[in-house]
Amino acid sequence: GVLGSGDFARSLAIRLVCSGFKVVVGSRNPKRKASLFPAAAEVTFQAEAVKKADVIFVAIFREHYSTLCDLADVLAGKILVDVSNNTEINHHKESNAEYLASLFPACTVVKGFNVVSAWTLQSGARDGNKQVLICSNNQEAKRTVAEIAQVMGFTPVDMGCMSSACEIENVPLRLLPDWKIPIFLALGLFLCFFTYNLIRQVIHPYIREQKNKLYKIPIEVVNTTLPCVSYVMLSLVYLPGVLAACSQLYYGTKYRRFPDWLDQWLQHRKQIGLLSFFCAALHAVYSLCLPMRRSHRYLLIETAVKQAVEKKMTIWVEEEVWRMEIYISVGIIALGLLSLLAITSLPSIANSLNWREFSFIQ
Amino acid sequence: GVLGSGDFARSLAIRLVCSGFKVVVGSRNPKRKASLFPAAAEVTFQAEAVKKADVIFVAIFREHYSTLCDLADVLAGKILVDVSNNTEINHHKESNAEYLASLFPACTVVKGFNVVSAWTLQSGARDGNKQVLICSNNQEAKRTVAEIAQVMGFTPVDMGCMSSACEIENVPLRLLPDWKIPIFLALGLFLCFFTYNLIRQVIHPYIREQKNKLYKIPIEVVNTTLPCVSYVMLSLVYLPGVLAACSQLYYGTKYRRFPDWLDQWLQHRKQIGLLSFFCAALHAVYSLCLPMRRSHRYLLIETAVKQAVEKKMTIWVEEEVWRMEIYISVGIIALGLLSLLAITSLPSIANSLNWREFSFIQ
Amino acid sequence: GVLGSGDFARSLAIRLVCSGFKVVVGSRNPKRKASLFPAAAEVTFQAEAVKKADVIFVAIFREHYSTLCDLADVLAGKILVDVSNNTEINHHKESNAEYLASLFPACTVVKGFNVVSAWTLQSGARDGNKQVLICSNNQEAKRTVAEIAQVMGFTPVDMGCMSSACEIENVPLRLLPDWKIPIFLALGLFLCFFTYNLIRQVIHPYIREQKNKLYKIPIEVVNTTLPCVSYVMLSLVYLPGVLAACSQLYYGTKYRRFPDWLDQWLQHRKQIGLLSFFCAALHAVYSLCLPMRRSHRYLLIETAVKQAVEKKMTIWVEEEVWRMEIYISVGIIALGLLSLLAITSLPSIANSLNWREFSFIQ
Repeated sequence: GVLGSGDFARSLAIRLVCSGFKVVVGSRNPKRKASLFPAAAEVTFQAEAVKKADVIFVAIFREHYSTLCDLADVLAGKILVDVSNNTEINHHKESNAEYLASLFPACTVVKGFNVVSAWTLQSGARDGNKQVLICSNNQEAKRTVAEIAQVMGFTPVDMGCMSSACEIENVPLRLLPDWKIPIFLALGLFLCFFTYNLIRQVIHPYIREQKNKLYKIPIEVVNTTLPCVSYVMLSLVYLPGVLAACSQLYYGTKYRRFPDWLDQWLQHRKQIGLLSFFCAALHAVYSLCLPMRRSHRYLLIETAVKQAVEKKMTIWVEEEVWRMEIYISVGIIALGLLSLLAITSLPSIANSLNWREFSFIQ
Repeated sequence: GVLGSGDFARSLAIRLVCSGFKVVVGSRNPKRKASLFPAAAEVTFQAEAVKKADVIFVAIFREHYSTLCDLADVLAGKILVDVSNNTEINHHKESNAEYLASLFPACTVVKGFNVVSAWTLQSGARDGNKQVLICSNNQEAKRTVAEIAQVMGFTPVDMGCMSSACEIENVPLRLLPDWKIPIFLALGLFLCFFTYNLIRQVIHPYIREQKNKLYKIPIEVVNTTLPCVSYVMLSLVYLPGVLAACSQLYYGTKYRRFPDWLDQWLQHRKQIGLLSFFCAALHAVYSLCLPMRRSHRYLLIETAVKQAVEKKMTIWVEEEVWRMEIYISVGIIALGLLSLLAITSLPSIANSLNWREFSFIQ
Repeated sequence: GVLGSGDFARSLAIRLVCSGFKVVVGSRNPKRKASLFPAAAEVTFQAEAVKKADVIFVAIFREHYSTLCDLADVLAGKILVDVSNNTEINHHKESNAEYLASLFPACTVVKGFNVVSAWTLQSGARDGNKQVLICSNNQEAKRTVAEIAQVMGFTPVDMGCMSSACEIENVPLRLLPDWKIPIFLALGLFLCFFTYNLIRQVIHPYIREQKNKLYKIPIEVVNTTLPCVSYVMLSLVYLPGVLAACSQLYYGTKYRRFPDWLDQWLQHRKQIGLLSFFCAALHAVYSLCLPMRRSHRYLLIETAVKQAVEKKMTIWVEEEVWRMEIYISVGIIALGLLSLLAITSLPSIANSLNWREFSFIQ
């Protein structure tokens, strides 16, 4: 059974019908709404629909839950699936599912399906996340809803008892919260170093010697900026650990909570590290592209021609040769090690490591 | 208990014995077959074996299920595990497990272990997929079989009730079905663009100016072909979404099914996108290799010598310099963004994103 | 309830309090120990604590389990969670959890939480592995403990019945055991080939022609060494399969166990293959860096100047051009194919492939 006739209710009904379930839709105005639902779904009055169904998806807004109170008698003993979402994180004190459960104590309430979109429901779980998070205080009801999700092509994930409902309702509102600070940090650092390098490599030679080096902006200036950002970010990954250790030494205990800023910082280390790796990888690609550039070619030919005209046979500055060889080989080794670190931060790899192995690699 | 004496039955018995289970094998000719099984497994007549065992693996072909009908009485109340596979997708109307359940209504049938090969069973789950998909209408029986799978070193995956059996039986027959069309598409596009570039860069100069440029075929022609393929594939990822939107606008509803070809196309977007990324990455590697080539070196020296002999000190075509700088830097940024997209299509990453985050990244 | 006042007990109590549980700590000296625990946790005598709690975490060493025997009466009917670890793999005959269960037959013992560190417990599951492996012979108790783990922010993983306890206790002691032999193998091969190439490219020219080529060591010598290591490792991936087939042909049966060394070798193929890929990828990066080096630039200019002075207009050795073009293009294709192989060895990808697809890609 599906209560409601909004976008989500319709997509849900379509998907259930496609998956071979018998669907009854309860509406306050079944005649007008019938055309919105697939022909195989029976659209009738709410009380009728509830009577015919064992599992009822409540696809209406939290604000309208109280309108169902008239149906309390027919609803008794049924499994109610709360699929609702909020528009803000922690908007209400108690989760929608717990509110629904408090309104209908005679029903078994299961939270679920709120993490899938109407579009995913309708078109089937194609790509992206196929997981449906489910929680309930009743094992039997949870299992029933999990099997419905399975047949519909989703992967049910047991999130335990009803107290997880709040967490589940917050999931769809999340937009990469762990990444915001690290990304702004990286952008800020990039801007600072970029300005510095721009002045040093382009503006300064232009003012002093009237040399037009503007062509260096898209690649060379960016390329000298990236490793600076990468180094600072990498140091920001290891600094908070040192600060935390100092704080523990100072207070003489491991069991005191760290100040909030340090705690936040410790929590963002993984993201900062991955951005540092991203900058390092971009730096590698930029550096490798240097000899492909037309300007590199022109400068090379110019030097060769100049030397040929002056009949200087060879220049070989041993120091410059060695500096470059060592710079490149250390760079490759550093990138190789950072790659290993980045790979172990993939969830499926991290899950196959124990904490001894994880700390060893870190 | 194991019924049958084929390859799978033997591997199953070996693995069960190695995992510390007591194994009874039921055969119609126990004396002749005993030598095929490990010494620790007792080989006896079918009826004997069934009596001694609580969980019975039915490792015989669907065609011979009916030969077990004589054992119906002793089988009553036991858990039967259907491990059979088909040779064609959807060969029979009902799945083998459902057919077995219909023959022995007094037994509890569990579908499982068909997704592992005889080789994996025998040598233990080393690499590749360690999952064993299990389904049954009986929770208790499913749990028992899941724990057996666990002890054997596999990861049991609960696939819900018996109606999933058909799906589970089709799994081992699958051979990358989602990839076939995209790969043929990519190969077709590659051939077309390769021929065009071959004519343009090698055959045309040969005919017109008798210049032998055959050396360009392995790298330069391939390298100009790859981005063309990549661009067309990338546009094919986004085109069906636009077509779907147009179709919705035209019909004035979101709830009409798309035509089959569009639906198919929408389903292959992920694979087309990954192949586009693969071509783009190969293009990047090919481009980076250009300055390593002997021909590049020769042409560079030739130009330098020519200029030196003619005493032309410098050539610096500002436009060409800028074109190359911008081309390279835009290329790197595009590749970096495509890499992020490719990473989010890894199952373990996709499962940690909600659909809001997923659409944001897309 | 938590029994014990060590590091793990304290971290566990902190985390439980933070997750909203009522915590009672049982200690033999509650007055002295109370200050170590968070204020919200009640610290009392062991017998008192046990009476008040339903689920009791036994955070004491295996050696001291017998000291709890006085509490056997009050413990009866409770769920005991064994969180202990050993200092050596398979130190005792039976696992700690099974030993605890044998001491208190009237209790339900659940093994769990031993795979998380005190640090992870205290600071919450931030990065790395969030899984908590749980096993027990009692479904209900296992589910209760799993829900506690869920609320604490971990991902409970059902490992089946008590016989898995030994395996779970060995997990935290593991330190990449599958990687040790392959890594030493790769290092050994690298040393051999490096020495050979060093003699051939640096020492020999120095002795014979007094040419100082020391600058070649960090990049060129390493770069010629890496593909040798990669090739030998790759052949070591496929060799044991051939040997196994030969052994099967020789003995005329598929069901004879392979000798131990071959079995070990077969088990390390994946790791050897990944190291081979790592060397191949490093070789690609090193090769791409070659034209960036100062020495490459000097040698190029030297050749150009020499030719210009001698007025030799062009050198074009067709054979050398072709050799390089083919070498590079075959190298790129090989690296592309190895990358696909490496990607399918990611656990989340491998789990989405059936064995037919996996063998096809291999």
